[in-house]
Amino acid sequence: MRPIRLGMVGGGAGAFFGPVHRTAARLDGRFELVAGAFSSRPEAAGEGAALIADAARSYPHYRAMIEAEARREDGVELIAIVTPNHLHYPVAKAALEAGIAVLCEKPLALDLEQARELAALASERDLLFAVAYTYTGYPMVRQAAAMVRAGELGTLRGAQIRYVQDWLATPVEAGGSKQAAWRTDPRLAGPGGCLGDIGTHCYNLLHSVTGLNAVALAADLQASVPGRALDDDVQIMLRLENGARAGIWATQVAPAVAKNGLDFHIYGDKGGLEWAQEAPDLLRFTPVGGNSVLMRRGAGGLHPAAVAATRLPAGHPEAYFEALGQLYRDIAEHWTQRSRAPLFGARVADGVAGIAFVETAIVSSRSNGAWTAMIPQAIAN
Amino acid sequence: MRPIRLGMVGGGAGAFFGPVHRTAARLDGRFELVAGAFSSRPEAAGEGAALIADAARSYPHYRAMIEAEARREDGVELIAIVTPNHLHYPVAKAALEAGIAVLCEKPLALDLEQARELAALASERDLLFAVAYTYTGYPMVRQAAAMVRAGELGTLRGAQIRYVQDWLATPVEAGGSKQAAWRTDPRLAGPGGCLGDIGTHCYNLLHSVTGLNAVALAADLQASVPGRALDDDVQIMLRLENGARAGIWATQVAPAVAKNGLDFHIYGDKGGLEWAQEAPDLLRFTPVGGNSVLMRRGAGGLHPAAVAATRLPAGHPEAYFEALGQLYRDIAEHWTQRSRAPLFGARVADGVAGIAFVETAIVSSRSNGAWTAMIPQAIAN
Amino acid sequence: MRPIRLGMVGGGAGAFFGPVHRTAARLDGRFELVAGAFSSRPEAAGEGAALIADAARSYPHYRAMIEAEARREDGVELIAIVTPNHLHYPVAKAALEAGIAVLCEKPLALDLEQARELAALASERDLLFAVAYTYTGYPMVRQAAAMVRAGELGTLRGAQIRYVQDWLATPVEAGGSKQAAWRTDPRLAGPGGCLGDIGTHCYNLLHSVTGLNAVALAADLQASVPGRALDDDVQIMLRLENGARAGIWATQVAPAVAKNGLDFHIYGDKGGLEWAQEAPDLLRFTPVGGNSVLMRRGAGGLHPAAVAATRLPAGHPEAYFEALGQLYRDIAEHWTQRSRAPLFGARVADGVAGIAFVETAIVSSRSNGAWTAMIPQAIAN
Amino acid sequence: MRPIRLGMVGGGAGAFFGPVHRTAARLDGRFELVAGAFSSRPEAAGEGAALIADAARSYPHYRAMIEAEARREDGVELIAIVTPNHLHYPVAKAALEAGIAVLCEKPLALDLEQARELAALASERDLLFAVAYTYTGYPMVRQAAAMVRAGELGTLRGAQIRYVQDWLATPVEAGGSKQAAWRTDPRLAGPGGCLGDIGTHCYNLLHSVTGLNAVALAADLQASVPGRALDDDVQIMLRLENGARAGIWATQVAPAVAKNGLDFHIYGDKGGLEWAQEAPDLLRFTPVGGNSVLMRRGAGGLHPAAVAATRLPAGHPEAYFEALGQLYRDIAEHWTQRSRAPLFGARVADGVAGIAFVETAIVSSRSNGAWTAMIPQAIAN
Repeated sequence: MRPIRLGMVGGGAGAFFGPVHRTAARLDGRFELVAGAFSSRPEAAGEGAALIADAARSYPHYRAMIEAEARREDGVELIAIVTPNHLHYPVAKAALEAGIAVLCEKPLALDLEQARELAALASERDLLFAVAYTYTGYPMVRQAAAMVRAGELGTLRGAQIRYVQDWLATPVEAGGSKQAAWRTDPRLAGPGGCLGDIGTHCYNLLHSVTGLNAVALAADLQASVPGRALDDDVQIMLRLENGARAGIWATQVAPAVAKNGLDFHIYGDKGGLEWAQEAPDLLRFTPVGGNSVLMRRGAGGLHPAAVAATRLPAGHPEAYFEALGQLYRDIAEHWTQRSRAPLFGARVADGVAGIAFVETAIVSSRSNGAWTAMIPQAIAN
Repeated sequence: MRPIRLGMVGGGAGAFFGPVHRTAARLDGRFELVAGAFSSRPEAAGEGAALIADAARSYPHYRAMIEAEARREDGVELIAIVTPNHLHYPVAKAALEAGIAVLCEKPLALDLEQARELAALASERDLLFAVAYTYTGYPMVRQAAAMVRAGELGTLRGAQIRYVQDWLATPVEAGGSKQAAWRTDPRLAGPGGCLGDIGTHCYNLLHSVTGLNAVALAADLQASVPGRALDDDVQIMLRLENGARAGIWATQVAPAVAKNGLDFHIYGDKGGLEWAQEAPDLLRFTPVGGNSVLMRRGAGGLHPAAVAATRLPAGHPEAYFEALGQLYRDIAEHWTQRSRAPLFGARVADGVAGIAFVETAIVSSRSNGAWTAMIPQAIAN
Repeated sequence: MRPIRLGMVGGGAGAFFGPVHRTAARLDGRFELVAGAFSSRPEAAGEGAALIADAARSYPHYRAMIEAEARREDGVELIAIVTPNHLHYPVAKAALEAGIAVLCEKPLALDLEQARELAALASERDLLFAVAYTYTGYPMVRQAAAMVRAGELGTLRGAQIRYVQDWLATPVEAGGSKQAAWRTDPRLAGPGGCLGDIGTHCYNLLHSVTGLNAVALAADLQASVPGRALDDDVQIMLRLENGARAGIWATQVAPAVAKNGLDFHIYGDKGGLEWAQEAPDLLRFTPVGGNSVLMRRGAGGLHPAAVAATRLPAGHPEAYFEALGQLYRDIAEHWTQRSRAPLFGARVADGVAGIAFVETAIVSSRSNGAWTAMIPQAIAN
Repeated sequence: MRPIRLGMVGGGAGAFFGPVHRTAARLDGRFELVAGAFSSRPEAAGEGAALIADAARSYPHYRAMIEAEARREDGVELIAIVTPNHLHYPVAKAALEAGIAVLCEKPLALDLEQARELAALASERDLLFAVAYTYTGYPMVRQAAAMVRAGELGTLRGAQIRYVQDWLATPVEAGGSKQAAWRTDPRLAGPGGCLGDIGTHCYNLLHSVTGLNAVALAADLQASVPGRALDDDVQIMLRLENGARAGIWATQVAPAVAKNGLDFHIYGDKGGLEWAQEAPDLLRFTPVGGNSVLMRRGAGGLHPAAVAATRLPAGHPEAYFEALGQLYRDIAEHWTQRSRAPLFGARVADGVAGIAFVETAIVSSRSNGAWTAMIPQAIAN
């Protein structure tokens, strides 16, 4: 089985997602990174060339790369977009128009119009277009989703999702942090700061695990650090389509024991599930009136979707690279089988829903947190 | 040092708070239970008599007790009110009017008018009137409050308080649970269900630890169990007087590993604090940019307020009885010294604030969760 | 039900066990402290007198107390001995000879001869004689023992018990710590340091939970701190009567997250149990091949022995005072019913077994850790 | 930088280590698997061929592979040996004799004579020979070792290492488990069962982190499951060269919350360190008399050795693949730089020490657990 030929846009020196995607893509040996436009800085050309076998396929600009690769018989088949947010749309559009499949970091675009255009384009060209909601790659997140669908929680009543970081607790964007600089600049990050960066992961998990859409939300966005242009601390109340309520708290200014403290608590009339990203192999299930049970990745009794995303036996921990690697593996499976089975939580529709969530939250926030109907997003479950 | 003579109203067979208060009052040997109106059921008279030394001081009704005890030279000095909520007001009023000090379970009353009347009465008579916000008795909650006041967290930016239970996940009120029956009946519990029962603890902790009042809130109240008359799952967003934001999630229908899962995460521009009621001896402090530190009750380096509330060395766990016992000890200290030092988090003003919180949340909820200014509550910090 | 009249020997200012026992005895209202010989220091007389109602019953010496109280019609019925170890034997002997029941701190005596004499004396006089193995008072320890006896673990294969402290990591005995001074002095503490102080708790838990005696052990005792006369770090391998193996590690010089880190892991061919003293409400059961289950004090499905030792519902934590309070309650139950039902893990036989364990370990250690048959101890299960 | 050409012996269908090593080798893109003798079963030839690009380099036997590859200009440069234990020696010997470097799974050989021969051969031929002590690849294990060497724990006093599994709690070797079958067969696994399989990891961690050798040990080995030929539950007391004491408990029959429960507690006169393999990103440091500090992989303030082994920022968990991947990366670094810097904890000397540990433990066990001097092992630190 020959590897899928992968290209990358973004991800040069100092980037976070570039190396992460390269490692995740390598994990199962199903992809080969053959081309890239890793950086637009001329002095970075050498670095980029070192990442691939053929230095000639390291391009100074994504347009050059897409043009050249589209002409090659052995050109890239999938482009991973790991640039700052404002480039997601133009790069994805160019790739799709050149007939190349895409895995794009979230958020999918800067606004809903762009996002819908990309979704339509991918559909029209019948191209795979995935969005890197990494956390849906965790096996025990998939186990949670399977348990919900199997009715093991009963009728869902509520969900609380938190995402706690503190790396923006001080004005690091003013101090030379490249990561912080673009993520707090509306022109590069889009209208949502913390909301777009990590709040979207919360909404994606909420939707992916429960299988439910939100119908309305009330959002309170805050920029805690003086002078910051975008929100860095967000709380949102949501109503789901079945009448259940949900809450999201996403912050980048709250020092905590957890450093990337994404967790959820989802409950129905039969039981509740708790999961935390920093101990991803564990899912805790508490039936109403019974003892809590510790479910583990790699142990017996799990749903097929969790088993399929597992590489190691229980007790040999898997973690972040495997979660993102699972998205790559899902793509490879999808690719090979030429099936149309949807990617779990990482479809372009999930990306569009993420943007709709961001835009609705901003509308609500601007009307003093009034309950606001979710902007239609056309997610087919 | 002779013990303070304690009377009790409520707390007969099948009650939760009665035995708990009796044990907590005994803990330090500073109180002697000498009289009670434990139950209005005639057949319970014997049970009540067995709880005290002189059976003649077990009364069938609180009015009889207050009248008789007020006439005795060795009559009760403090009455603990542990009845269902609707009796808090009349019993407290009768006690205060008879010149007897009061420790009342929360919520203080069924509405704000009652609450204010009681506060005024206590003030007028110059009588101690405490409200049993048990969780403020935990030493590490007091440590957290002291750290905030000492500036160790910097300027406060946010707080998230959760209180997760699941004992009302099914309609147990229809199945003979005495506890559930009155707590879900608006005539006995008041207008807030989960909101009044445990949401008030969240608000009390928020205020006690941060030292800040809320200025507005947006509340979403839900009755999850079909047919239930009062809310059982509550989420509320708040704005604090210094501009910080806070969130409260209180639920009685969410199965979880924690069974009485009250916890808080409070953070400022210098650091964050995390505490959870089921591991009450531990407070986790994370400075911005530094390693998390595990602070422990009984270990070195704590503020005097935490040290003063400690009975055992670190590693010999203290728990719920000691927390409530601390409220009793605070009262005894206050009493003996005839000082006017306020009780931490358990003053009548805290009780009034709790009712104001409940009423404001209900107003907001009835206007579809609109942001609503907190009803003035006159808390002096 | 009138309270049992309690006397105390030891436990004056600066003592650890004195206040702890007084609080635990008060917890359920079943005892009244009426007399004491709290300290032999003349200047401490006042302090002692303040602890009881009748100052005349605060005695300067235990002999005076026993003599006087034995003559009173309302004299003490039970004496709690909370002195340094070397006084356990003479005080207990004097009490028993005067016909007074005893609750003695562990270790029961300085050597096996003394211990056996006390056991014989108690039996001869038909007096209750309990030993304060506090940790057996925890409900979930009793649940563990009940599960073992019910066969839920299958045939026992092994047990590992650890007890980790660090308060003797520096030579505090040279720096004025009264607690450290006597515990590291062979004349006051007996031949075992850490071994007698906390190692005996390990052996007691091992025996109480498994119901098995050790038949042989190999011990390695170490004095880590230069100049210390007694061991402060102990590891012991044991063989149990059914062929299972066990290990004990007890140390007072190992800094750890746990400050009084007593825990056990006991396993058979059907499942394993894990418990830790600093989170005493939780017992984790893992069946072979299955998911781990979190069992909680106060929740459903527990054995009667655990239920009977429970005061609060799940999630309202109980802790150290309740564990020791349970020993007092067991005594009160035993007393009232005039039954001969054995006290769980706290009988005089358990105390004798503890001394036999200490002596055998010292013999083994002196023969370079050779496997040594347990000195016969005549424990009837 | 071209990848190092990797060959593999063992690791066909049903194997544990084969896929794990292939993934770990791929992780950083520094190795390319080009050849293998994955299985001696003829019917497995196709499976093996699918793992590499050139099916002709999938060999039916390791001898054929080594012979053919040694002749190729582009032949394998490093052979990963992931067979059952009894083949480690002949394969490693053949590889070294053909001038090919080796990464061998532990235990290095079936006996000390074989192990020493391999070490001598590697030295003589000046070939890299690494042993896959995977757990030394964890960054926080390296942090622990660096802290010890920097004196942050003071003079070491003790160490307790545990390794708890339960997968052999039933006689699975009789039920068709290929993994269990060879690991419980002395001809294939060698003289140590649990001792060799996981006990060696404990000893390796003990030595790697403390930097100290054991001078003597007393071992108690047990076969818990009836009919099992090799030990499955092992406890060992050790004395280290500086006078400190250590304990090892390794079991494959103890059901626990942890499924691969390797942990250590190492302490000196200044502080203690605790680490557990299932939460590998966390290292807990407790200074004598101070609060415990949670140190995290990827956070600030770590020693260079920990930083160098880190791929992701704190909160984005790394796990087992990264630990083994770190051994591969260490080899690649070593290779590229042609340095002679020793591999941390994974040198051939560590492998020899592991065998010496196993043999000494067996000698001790056969003399009824007598203290036995460690067989000399010539480890240069």
